Amino acid sequence: MSLGSIAIKNATIITFDPDERIIDVGDIGIAGSEIVYVGGADQAPEAETTIDGEGCVVLPGFVNAHTHLAMTLMRGFADDMRVQEWLEQKIWPTEERLEKADVYWGAMLGIAEMIRSGTTCFNDMYWAFDETLRAVIESGIRACPSGVLIGVHPQAEEHLAQAIDFVRRCQEDGHERVVPMFGPHAPYTCPDAMLKRVRAQAQELGVGIHIHLSETKQEVEDSLREHGKTPVERVRDLGLFDVHVIAPHCVHPTDSDIDVLAEYGVGVAHNPGSNMKLGSGIAPVPEMRSRGVIVGIGTDGAASNNNLDMLEEARLAALLHKVNTGDPTVISAYEALAMATRESARALEIFDQVGSIEVGKRADVIVIDLKQPHLSPRHNAVSHIVYAARASDVTATIVHGELLMLDGKLTTLNEEEIIREASGRAARLVR
Amino acid sequence: MSLGSIAIKNATIITFDPDERIIDVGDIGIAGSEIVYVGGADQAPEAETTIDGEGCVVLPGFVNAHTHLAMTLMRGFADDMRVQEWLEQKIWPTEERLEKADVYWGAMLGIAEMIRSGTTCFNDMYWAFDETLRAVIESGIRACPSGVLIGVHPQAEEHLAQAIDFVRRCQEDGHERVVPMFGPHAPYTCPDAMLKRVRAQAQELGVGIHIHLSETKQEVEDSLREHGKTPVERVRDLGLFDVHVIAPHCVHPTDSDIDVLAEYGVGVAHNPGSNMKLGSGIAPVPEMRSRGVIVGIGTDGAASNNNLDMLEEARLAALLHKVNTGDPTVISAYEALAMATRESARALEIFDQVGSIEVGKRADVIVIDLKQPHLSPRHNAVSHIVYAARASDVTATIVHGELLMLDGKLTTLNEEEIIREASGRAARLVR
Repeated sequence: MSLGSIAIKNATIITFDPDERIIDVGDIGIAGSEIVYVGGADQAPEAETTIDGEGCVVLPGFVNAHTHLAMTLMRGFADDMRVQEWLEQKIWPTEERLEKADVYWGAMLGIAEMIRSGTTCFNDMYWAFDETLRAVIESGIRACPSGVLIGVHPQAEEHLAQAIDFVRRCQEDGHERVVPMFGPHAPYTCPDAMLKRVRAQAQELGVGIHIHLSETKQEVEDSLREHGKTPVERVRDLGLFDVHVIAPHCVHPTDSDIDVLAEYGVGVAHNPGSNMKLGSGIAPVPEMRSRGVIVGIGTDGAASNNNLDMLEEARLAALLHKVNTGDPTVISAYEALAMATRESARALEIFDQVGSIEVGKRADVIVIDLKQPHLSPRHNAVSHIVYAARASDVTATIVHGELLMLDGKLTTLNEEEIIREASGRAARLVR
Repeated sequence: MSLGSIAIKNATIITFDPDERIIDVGDIGIAGSEIVYVGGADQAPEAETTIDGEGCVVLPGFVNAHTHLAMTLMRGFADDMRVQEWLEQKIWPTEERLEKADVYWGAMLGIAEMIRSGTTCFNDMYWAFDETLRAVIESGIRACPSGVLIGVHPQAEEHLAQAIDFVRRCQEDGHERVVPMFGPHAPYTCPDAMLKRVRAQAQELGVGIHIHLSETKQEVEDSLREHGKTPVERVRDLGLFDVHVIAPHCVHPTDSDIDVLAEYGVGVAHNPGSNMKLGSGIAPVPEMRSRGVIVGIGTDGAASNNNLDMLEEARLAALLHKVNTGDPTVISAYEALAMATRESARALEIFDQVGSIEVGKRADVIVIDLKQPHLSPRHNAVSHIVYAARASDVTATIVHGELLMLDGKLTTLNEEEIIREASGRAARLVR
């Protein structure tokens, strides 16, 4: 679908703008890739495509702050296992068999799911990143892709060279919807020397770093024993936080780690579903937020979630911290929704482009239909989205001004082909 | 739709029968209200209605072991509050304004949501139970209704008389889909004398008792101070467990309470979503199950959930106990699904009728369509249902042999009218 103009009329608009405006009944105008009007009803400029927003809510698209997209291929093939066994017996042997085209079709499968469930941007770390990039460009979604770097891998040098080349090519090609990053996997899989080189490259190229931090208690204990520092302290001392860092998990930061994360403006990607399913623990999200840490939300890969449903993830964030603290007032519905949109965009340092509905921003916008039994009566739209809605209630997904889904129809993807190809490849992989 | 015959062909069938059979590709035959065939593909008897089950999973309908159905009217009008304020400032004053017809339309709204999301039976406790019964009979769903009894209420005597009359009438009228119970609210709202009278009536009429137990720490502490006994000990000593009891919550049983619940065969209704949202705590479900307590799953009312989605509830049960124990192997996907179906039926003592797919049982059966991006590739049907599916993936709901929903269309309910009526009444109530 070409970049034309779109109007959404008579919808409730949750803007996440600086005034935190929620417009009860209003219009949105989109021209090209940009939001050009947000305000009162029946005032949006005439447009090529008009979406009737009556009884619907419009909000910024979900920003998935952490995933491993092509792991959709491993969705549900190994569950209810201890993490180390799961990785060593199931995930890693399967990844050994991955071919490049597998990553492309796994990414396409994940993108189809994300567009359907209202995710307009995702932050990825995986192998064969050029294949993920190809899927991003073809599908029309927005992404922050990074190639995973495992310092202890025999081909680590080659991977680093490829990652540098990938970032350079992305920058040269000027893909408007792509913000590349470096993806050193985690402090425990990357020696100091490699992390320093990655940091130097990130600084030189002006891009961010995506690195898992403090996911498990074991990881923190090992780091303290081997390095005399927590993972957060260690990467700080290696200078990583001198560039932009997005750090998935942070389930087990120490008290002083939280100060470090706040001081350096590190973006944390909270993954409640994955942390629950793997039994990793509960990140101190209310505490991190109250001390100024930017906390977005991610799904992690579909092998440990097992979907890419940001609406569910926002709900889990709201529920988990209430029961963990015994305080039902922490992480309100509005805060959870903000974390899945604006805060994820801030954590990825792309909030200048997306994450709120404001004139001048890129048009990454979704529509949720409340005219359904499970979303009636309509006392509170924000509460309904976070506590009662389902991904299937998303009726329209717009990225960069392009309508990628309307009324259950994907406009850029051949879903049947994707399911067939991905399923065939997955069957080969997990044998 | 009349009670005819239905065949579901070429589906994966999760039976929850005594052999725990999962039939990879098979057929189900239904005649009248009964399951008459479960087995290999292309062998079901010819039927008036045939459902193509290719790529789909068939399982017993979800049994919601605890709700307050008409509270759908209060969905989302008060969230993120402390329990006592929520009840005293919001819920109770609103319930004061409830009219009988409100309960009917609130129940209809909840039933529409439940049928859409694959729930075929629910255990209810609420005011104006005759209105809920009317909605149950008209809609075709199965239910265990009980009128709430609050011993400290000024009209407690009248309510008890009405409850006795209700149970008698249900028995006399012989509604096949209705199993009435008594609903004394909780030990802390019912004096000893009333609980004893309810027990005597339940014994005489041969019905069960639905009573909240040990939902909050405060409740247990108060009971110990005032009675020198935990709530579980107190109701045991009053003889309640001499009849069948279904006890929602049991978040804070003592170690010896767990033995008592197991010894007397008390059915526990675990409500993870409500317990998380209200910050009530985490029930020791793995421990209760390993010690022989029957634990089903319920949603609680939509005012504290905020939906009636049993699929989500099963997922929460699987995830919450993993993170709480730090052990990703507890409450497997299969166990969670069993809890939401077979175990809920056992907890309600209706497993002789429903809760598994076996020849001779009532045909309460649902179909879930896996042919979708978020449920591909299809490594494991049980895992996909519990960890990745959404309520909207339910494509057919059959209760007592009657097709109540097929491909998104409800056959017995006028959804538009229900949403309009319920919404209008809700607007009046919460003013």
